[in-house]
Amino acid sequence: MKKEIFETEITILRDTFRRLIRRHAKTNIIKLIDKTHPADMALTFQYLNEAEQDLIFNFMKANNNTVEFLSELYESTSLRLLESDSAKRIASILQYASSNEQAYLMGLVNERFANSVIKLLEADEQEQLEEIMAYPDDSAGSLMYTDVFTLHEETNAKQAVNALQDQNDAEMVFYLYTLDDDGRLTGVISLRELVITPAETKLKDIMSRQIHAIRPETDQEEVAKIVSQYNILAVPVIDSEDKLLGIVTVDDVVDVIREEATEDFLQMVGAGKDREILLRSSWENAKSRLPWLFASWIGGIMAAFIIGIFDDVLEKSIVLAAFIPVIIGMGGNVGTQSSTLIVRGLATGRVNVENSIKVLFKEIRVGLILGVLYGILLGLFAVIKFINMPPTLGLAVGLSICSSMIIAATIGSIVPLILDKFDIDPAIATGPFVTTAIDILGVTLYFLIAKFLLNGI
Amino acid sequence: MKKEIFETEITILRDTFRRLIRRHAKTNIIKLIDKTHPADMALTFQYLNEAEQDLIFNFMKANNNTVEFLSELYESTSLRLLESDSAKRIASILQYASSNEQAYLMGLVNERFANSVIKLLEADEQEQLEEIMAYPDDSAGSLMYTDVFTLHEETNAKQAVNALQDQNDAEMVFYLYTLDDDGRLTGVISLRELVITPAETKLKDIMSRQIHAIRPETDQEEVAKIVSQYNILAVPVIDSEDKLLGIVTVDDVVDVIREEATEDFLQMVGAGKDREILLRSSWENAKSRLPWLFASWIGGIMAAFIIGIFDDVLEKSIVLAAFIPVIIGMGGNVGTQSSTLIVRGLATGRVNVENSIKVLFKEIRVGLILGVLYGILLGLFAVIKFINMPPTLGLAVGLSICSSMIIAATIGSIVPLILDKFDIDPAIATGPFVTTAIDILGVTLYFLIAKFLLNGI
Repeated sequence: MKKEIFETEITILRDTFRRLIRRHAKTNIIKLIDKTHPADMALTFQYLNEAEQDLIFNFMKANNNTVEFLSELYESTSLRLLESDSAKRIASILQYASSNEQAYLMGLVNERFANSVIKLLEADEQEQLEEIMAYPDDSAGSLMYTDVFTLHEETNAKQAVNALQDQNDAEMVFYLYTLDDDGRLTGVISLRELVITPAETKLKDIMSRQIHAIRPETDQEEVAKIVSQYNILAVPVIDSEDKLLGIVTVDDVVDVIREEATEDFLQMVGAGKDREILLRSSWENAKSRLPWLFASWIGGIMAAFIIGIFDDVLEKSIVLAAFIPVIIGMGGNVGTQSSTLIVRGLATGRVNVENSIKVLFKEIRVGLILGVLYGILLGLFAVIKFINMPPTLGLAVGLSICSSMIIAATIGSIVPLILDKFDIDPAIATGPFVTTAIDILGVTLYFLIAKFLLNGI
Repeated sequence: MKKEIFETEITILRDTFRRLIRRHAKTNIIKLIDKTHPADMALTFQYLNEAEQDLIFNFMKANNNTVEFLSELYESTSLRLLESDSAKRIASILQYASSNEQAYLMGLVNERFANSVIKLLEADEQEQLEEIMAYPDDSAGSLMYTDVFTLHEETNAKQAVNALQDQNDAEMVFYLYTLDDDGRLTGVISLRELVITPAETKLKDIMSRQIHAIRPETDQEEVAKIVSQYNILAVPVIDSEDKLLGIVTVDDVVDVIREEATEDFLQMVGAGKDREILLRSSWENAKSRLPWLFASWIGGIMAAFIIGIFDDVLEKSIVLAAFIPVIIGMGGNVGTQSSTLIVRGLATGRVNVENSIKVLFKEIRVGLILGVLYGILLGLFAVIKFINMPPTLGLAVGLSICSSMIIAATIGSIVPLILDKFDIDPAIATGPFVTTAIDILGVTLYFLIAKFLLNGI
């Protein structure tokens, strides 16, 4: 219900903009831009064509809202708008952005354009920006705000409240961080505690010394775990001398969590690291999907070899070919279920070193239950459908699917656990390993069992 | 790097607890509990055995920390600790919990135990708790805190700051919500704005009237979208008369986003809605995975039927059987890649009504590129490997894999888009549809092409 209302609001906004554009009502367009939340502007842009987008973007002023709008837009749209504008205008907008927002936007566009924009910024801004851009992608350093509300720990509560007035630039002033004489981070106070503290109390007497600080090179996934575990709104980033470099705020962490989940999703099926299907060309998309498919191709080729070896069995009972798809398919599906459970469990921390053996055996038991069940089901089907064949066909098919499902559950669980042990991201490598192994093992077992039961003796 | 440090800390904690338990050092255990962050306590519990867990939990006091500890624990552990304790002790701990925390914990345990605990709570707490528990699972109502910092909009800034002192129970006092004479929500002020406002200014003159309020029945996924889009720390929940019922805070939203991503992950492969593998028995796990596998079983059975129909083709060129795995496998994998991209895109909003056709055609183009590539590769392989067969075998195999990959990409993209159109969760239903369709279509096309090229003419 809510979803529809939400989409309706955006559609109304879009239609209003379209009407104003048709009427060339410049002043009204500007008014509507000012009245609309930047996040809503960003959403509306997804429903406009490029000409309309360009026109409206041209009317946007250089201010905080435009910065937020550009940060909330899909990367592909942001990139297009930025690159098709002049370096001068973009630089004037970027003046209103924090260093990490500048770094994000300049990281999107091509290097030449980025350089021409950065050249137009003021010297100290350039310096800060270059510092942020030097941190690796997806690190705390690239996410952090450098304008933080800090005070010396000897300050008293009244002075601190007064100091708040001058913190126009600071981000997320819900916490106040305290420093010692050497500028080292010593504590944190919530704004709320500050306000209810008697005027003369010194900060060091009310501050909390339990700080969960991180380093600029900490991976954003780790930052997300800390924020989610300790239920905090911002994490301070410190250097090796405990000096405060900046803070990572929860609103950026929320975006990180969404992105990381998407990435893991896509990597599990080898669909590339991309968050945006539309940003890259079909050819680039295909290219990022090639390696995973190649692994599965190798598995298929090897299965073909193995079936080739057993052509005498197949020639005697050609009906065996009919069950190849179901045996491979069921194995593959159970294996994917198991590996998805484990990969996701490792990502969220639900599966860990301590309980991994327990989880593995549980998965094998599940594979056993499912294998026996579908083994009986498929065996019965085979006997009934091919009534003129010896009933051992049913036994062979049933046994094959049962063993292939047990093996699939085992491999599906064991591969991500081993990869994780060797510090390889299980989301990337599990899929190809598991499907290839199951293709090969499934076919081999099937024909071995069939040979033994139908022809062999 | 950070991850290891983190795990080391927890391991040290665990070992310290173990040592103290061995020494029966009750006082020291209690001291260590008090000194440790509840979230760290929860983590440590994952590395302790049940006897150790029970012992330590027994030493925990009835206070806020113990409530937070219980909320941060994995559900299975929380459930066990609660149910194996007395209703009286649990009730005394729950006195320190907010209504939504109470509702969460009492929703975990069996109904009889929950009722015996709830009976021991105070009358007004019981009432509030029952109200929260009446909201559907995963709705804003079940997530919201009911203790909110609110004031009349005519209050002045100085009075508001004074009022802060009495807000001991209120959650997340970073925002102050303003009400009119009838108790309707009219605006919101950040604590920071409040502090820097002159003493005599009335709240209504500084408050923001742009509020993103939700209803208690709003789905938590929608709440997460709003928080992430507008970068806010709390969303007010209002009833049909605009009266403020509570707020949902960003720290709970962070947990929601993590959970929802996991759920979508598992649903995509039909591995159940469960977040916890260890909570349920193997049989229950198997049961939740049965339906999805059954769909794939039906697909396999139908493929068997189809291959049965073509047994004359197969008998003449038995080598065709060898390529069944690779043709089905590659189709299935491309289809899964496409459907994962679309399902995830729909969940994050990157794929929407406006661009769905564009995305669909892009996926088909990707399928075409990959199909042609692997078609040539497999065709060449077939010709080389089966050198004594007519070269049309290569053509047949190549054409089959090419067409099966294009069809797979198309079906993989179109199915979730259609499901979404009919308001069916694409994460649940896409997988079985796609794999079944690809199994059947892939095999049919393969044998039709082979019949035509090898035997037919």
